[in-house]
Amino acid sequence: MGEYKRPVVSVVGAGNVGEHVANLTAIKELANVRMFDLARKDGDKTYEIVKGKALDIKQMASAIGCDVEVEGYTVTAEGDGYEPLEGSDIVVVTAGFPRRPGMSRDDLLSKNVGIIRTVSERIAQYAPDAIVIVVSNPVDVLTYAALKLTGFPSNRVMGMAGVLDTARFKAFLSMELKVSVKNINAYVLGSHGDDMVPLLSVSNVGGEPLTKLIPENKLKEIVERTKFGGGEIVSLMGTSAYHAPGASVVEMVEAVLNDKKEIAPCSVYLEGDSAVHYEAEDICIGVPVKLGAHGVEEIIKLDFTEEEKELWKSSVSSVKSGIERIKELGLI
Amino acid sequence: MGEYKRPVVSVVGAGNVGEHVANLTAIKELANVRMFDLARKDGDKTYEIVKGKALDIKQMASAIGCDVEVEGYTVTAEGDGYEPLEGSDIVVVTAGFPRRPGMSRDDLLSKNVGIIRTVSERIAQYAPDAIVIVVSNPVDVLTYAALKLTGFPSNRVMGMAGVLDTARFKAFLSMELKVSVKNINAYVLGSHGDDMVPLLSVSNVGGEPLTKLIPENKLKEIVERTKFGGGEIVSLMGTSAYHAPGASVVEMVEAVLNDKKEIAPCSVYLEGDSAVHYEAEDICIGVPVKLGAHGVEEIIKLDFTEEEKELWKSSVSSVKSGIERIKELGLI
Amino acid sequence: MGEYKRPVVSVVGAGNVGEHVANLTAIKELANVRMFDLARKDGDKTYEIVKGKALDIKQMASAIGCDVEVEGYTVTAEGDGYEPLEGSDIVVVTAGFPRRPGMSRDDLLSKNVGIIRTVSERIAQYAPDAIVIVVSNPVDVLTYAALKLTGFPSNRVMGMAGVLDTARFKAFLSMELKVSVKNINAYVLGSHGDDMVPLLSVSNVGGEPLTKLIPENKLKEIVERTKFGGGEIVSLMGTSAYHAPGASVVEMVEAVLNDKKEIAPCSVYLEGDSAVHYEAEDICIGVPVKLGAHGVEEIIKLDFTEEEKELWKSSVSSVKSGIERIKELGLI
Amino acid sequence: MGEYKRPVVSVVGAGNVGEHVANLTAIKELANVRMFDLARKDGDKTYEIVKGKALDIKQMASAIGCDVEVEGYTVTAEGDGYEPLEGSDIVVVTAGFPRRPGMSRDDLLSKNVGIIRTVSERIAQYAPDAIVIVVSNPVDVLTYAALKLTGFPSNRVMGMAGVLDTARFKAFLSMELKVSVKNINAYVLGSHGDDMVPLLSVSNVGGEPLTKLIPENKLKEIVERTKFGGGEIVSLMGTSAYHAPGASVVEMVEAVLNDKKEIAPCSVYLEGDSAVHYEAEDICIGVPVKLGAHGVEEIIKLDFTEEEKELWKSSVSSVKSGIERIKELGLI
Repeated sequence: MGEYKRPVVSVVGAGNVGEHVANLTAIKELANVRMFDLARKDGDKTYEIVKGKALDIKQMASAIGCDVEVEGYTVTAEGDGYEPLEGSDIVVVTAGFPRRPGMSRDDLLSKNVGIIRTVSERIAQYAPDAIVIVVSNPVDVLTYAALKLTGFPSNRVMGMAGVLDTARFKAFLSMELKVSVKNINAYVLGSHGDDMVPLLSVSNVGGEPLTKLIPENKLKEIVERTKFGGGEIVSLMGTSAYHAPGASVVEMVEAVLNDKKEIAPCSVYLEGDSAVHYEAEDICIGVPVKLGAHGVEEIIKLDFTEEEKELWKSSVSSVKSGIERIKELGLI
Repeated sequence: MGEYKRPVVSVVGAGNVGEHVANLTAIKELANVRMFDLARKDGDKTYEIVKGKALDIKQMASAIGCDVEVEGYTVTAEGDGYEPLEGSDIVVVTAGFPRRPGMSRDDLLSKNVGIIRTVSERIAQYAPDAIVIVVSNPVDVLTYAALKLTGFPSNRVMGMAGVLDTARFKAFLSMELKVSVKNINAYVLGSHGDDMVPLLSVSNVGGEPLTKLIPENKLKEIVERTKFGGGEIVSLMGTSAYHAPGASVVEMVEAVLNDKKEIAPCSVYLEGDSAVHYEAEDICIGVPVKLGAHGVEEIIKLDFTEEEKELWKSSVSSVKSGIERIKELGLI
Repeated sequence: MGEYKRPVVSVVGAGNVGEHVANLTAIKELANVRMFDLARKDGDKTYEIVKGKALDIKQMASAIGCDVEVEGYTVTAEGDGYEPLEGSDIVVVTAGFPRRPGMSRDDLLSKNVGIIRTVSERIAQYAPDAIVIVVSNPVDVLTYAALKLTGFPSNRVMGMAGVLDTARFKAFLSMELKVSVKNINAYVLGSHGDDMVPLLSVSNVGGEPLTKLIPENKLKEIVERTKFGGGEIVSLMGTSAYHAPGASVVEMVEAVLNDKKEIAPCSVYLEGDSAVHYEAEDICIGVPVKLGAHGVEEIIKLDFTEEEKELWKSSVSSVKSGIERIKELGLI
Repeated sequence: MGEYKRPVVSVVGAGNVGEHVANLTAIKELANVRMFDLARKDGDKTYEIVKGKALDIKQMASAIGCDVEVEGYTVTAEGDGYEPLEGSDIVVVTAGFPRRPGMSRDDLLSKNVGIIRTVSERIAQYAPDAIVIVVSNPVDVLTYAALKLTGFPSNRVMGMAGVLDTARFKAFLSMELKVSVKNINAYVLGSHGDDMVPLLSVSNVGGEPLTKLIPENKLKEIVERTKFGGGEIVSLMGTSAYHAPGASVVEMVEAVLNDKKEIAPCSVYLEGDSAVHYEAEDICIGVPVKLGAHGVEEIIKLDFTEEEKELWKSSVSSVKSGIERIKELGLI
């Protein structure tokens, strides 16, 4: 027997986003896929949705002539059933509760950090060499939690947010300018959501600065649309987006598996030099990093304009308060 | 200006299956995509889900670096809003009602033929040269209706069913034999569902007959699992499959756009020689056809074993009664 | 019969570069491919190399499971045998003589413009709506000749040079910085070869200016290496490069067929506004353009630094003298 | 640091075939690529062609936006310079002498086994866990030599021949029947060249036996054309084919790296059960095998018709005499 084995990507949480991470990983034949989720009870019927989705994706692969293993595993909230994580090269964590009416912010944090705790312990147990990509929200805080709770080195734990925000920004710019997305160079840093930091200073289309190509108020409009990009989809569909979020994760997965050394904005732990440069310490937040076989191989130190710096500070402070809160609540 | 234009695939009906046809067409960069669906009211809120899905898919394309136009259009049940069908090379029809409790079979037929009528008229009006792929159920009957209601030649109207059934059959065989789906040659003909006709006589894996590779009762088990492949997913998930059905449509789309001359089982109109060979006339039902730029370029005349012939007759008779019924009801 | 037909890319000249245009077009399943070249006599044996290459590529496609038509046609120097150009959406012209010892520059120009004349007439005759991509050298001058000799509008005739120069520049930068080529934004404009104009002012890696990332003398070294990128390969192999040149053409082909609106440096005709902006008129030379279904859909007007402007002027003057020369020689 | 590393495919021998293995591996982004070849002296100039080809392929990757390492290494005939084989998951061996006028068959064997010896020793030294694919001719004999000289288990050494012969057979059938290559199921077994064994008994198109679809004499013609498929290309081009041979190797590489469990005809060592079934022992020869992450994971035992059995025996006897000869000459 030789040593070679095909890579394995595990996806914990098979909601819409997790499902589409699995689906696109299979379509691109990047790796074998394992999906994990709880069973769902509906009256006296118990659904194992994760197995249904895995089977549907497996049959999809058959339809398009791809060979890929896609397996669904039902796990428990207590952390049983995670043995098949073994051998995973990457574990994507999408598990988490959405906020329900009447639920306090602290209740929600508490529940979601609890999930991250369980999942992190199982990853550390069964896949101690894996790279972890956190998608669950609030992503920066939960990436921090996953880092602490797995005990993994900081190059192997990252959160997905900026890739999605950037994809949306590029999509809007591409539609506005009628230009290929390949020609658009743009970044959205900082925390996910209202506090995102679009880097207009380094953004350009084929080398021409955005600010030259698009009138100021139109550009402002596009930036605002990007900030509320998730909300726009919710208001059209009544549910959250999943195609673009799933694809954003798969871009990160592909950068790692193909050792691309690709610069992409990811939520990562700031320490040492990076902490100094970005004036923020002991935090996970979106900055441009180089993604390769070892995960986060480098943190890129971009310079901000004054305006960007203000947005950045506000972003940092927002994430910081989330991290402080989970510490105060004794959740990590 | 030159004459070249990128192909356009329109998808009428943006439920889960239609959405995944659009998604995979975009991922594979096969064509620009236009999606059509009704608005949905929920209390005093009106959702334009089709626009949300189109936008999410557009942003997905941006994330993975694909350039493709994906547009969502809200239409009315009366047939307003279909103008953007113009220029479509292929129109995929997934629109249709699922059966609701208390609804009679005739009510359901009546509603769904009504939808096909509206859509067919619009296709004939705006995209008179398009190739039409019907996915709505009951697929064989509705393909027949679409053929009559568009007035298109029979090479340009086909139903998707056998590709999906075959994909499932191959997936199960691949899992059983631990062998690449590329090596499995199998067909499922006849009507979709219980009446499908798996062609064991011509099925083989790398040239070895299935019947040699798999014990009879195991093979029977796999055939049964295939027949109820849709139901298996429903029982796991509580909803119908969409990844494999969507991908099966995209296989047909790709065969047409790349003029592949690919033999695949599709629901098509039997007449002339084919009607004689398959002993069924004035019917749309699943037989192997050659798919290319002109749609159904040839109907392959396979020979059945005695056992397969029995299944086939039963399949024909089941579809025939559906077609008779929509005629009796004056629906076409 | 519907109206749809699969696109056709014709390649005139099946030397190494033409062959690799055909090969990659087939691998990517972008279009059916037709190759044209002269027979070659060797003693009393006549080789139809173009048919051999087409057959080898067709068998390659079979090996990897692609369906694509690849046909080789033997033509004569007098222009017989070009009928199969009919229906081409794109015609790539790679035909031309290399400079032989003892051959004057004018002799070479004369011979190569002669080839372009024959090919242009046949393209105009059989494929009057096609988009033409000229690869033969000197590419800027021969693109000008093809434009005049086909009589095509200027959006449908372009030369390939800058895409290759840029690909090499990006490859060197990627190796130096250990970063994904997807993150490198750079352009090389002007004429092909020594007179190329690398746009350092708009070049960046993930938004960071090159000049910040790479010490000045190292960057200068990389620019020089790019300028002599073709020569470096010749000195290693004894023959010219073909993988990267072929792939550069296919990037342009794909931008057109997928209507990508991709900004890429191409040799195009400057007139009107563009002539004013670039201070050069009645010339084909490398500038950034937007490539889509209609060919050159827009000429991007980039601003130069003073240093770049000097290089640009020298580039323009070099191409201008070539164009003047073919006029003086009565070649066009 | 995590454990994950991107796969590495090394190609020893950078002639046309080796070069195209490297090229397609890069295009498909399957693995990082390392190429090895001798320097070539021409007068007082020394060419390092392998470095030129690697650089051209690297720049090709840059042009199409692929991130892949492609390195060329100059080695000596004595076996110096092979250190970068370290870490290879697959090593493809295309090195070998073509037959020159005046060279006896034994001289050629002796030279080529000598090359295989040197390369095998280096593979065993630097890449002891690699899977080895031999392409050099006579392929069955040299695969046997590589097996013995590396000392590797028989699942990790295989020869490429049947995949190419089969690709040619399928290409001809596809052209004859105007049908997708995906629908053609055919195998060519036995030794490469005149002694190949086309398995007409298990060959079919979409389930229909070839013998039903194609008149006997036409089919015979196609079989003959396949046998001399290499020669046909030589007679058209004056040199051997490389696109289809290279792609055939890459199909095998992809089957291994994606653990496809794909059944393909490869030259492998027959022993135990397989030796009994195929009535040939201590030989490497083309039989259908299942290719996966461990290399040859299973030898498929197909039944022959009487006619096929005769061809098979002749094939076995031809390879056997080659193997005996290299033993008699003391080459292994």
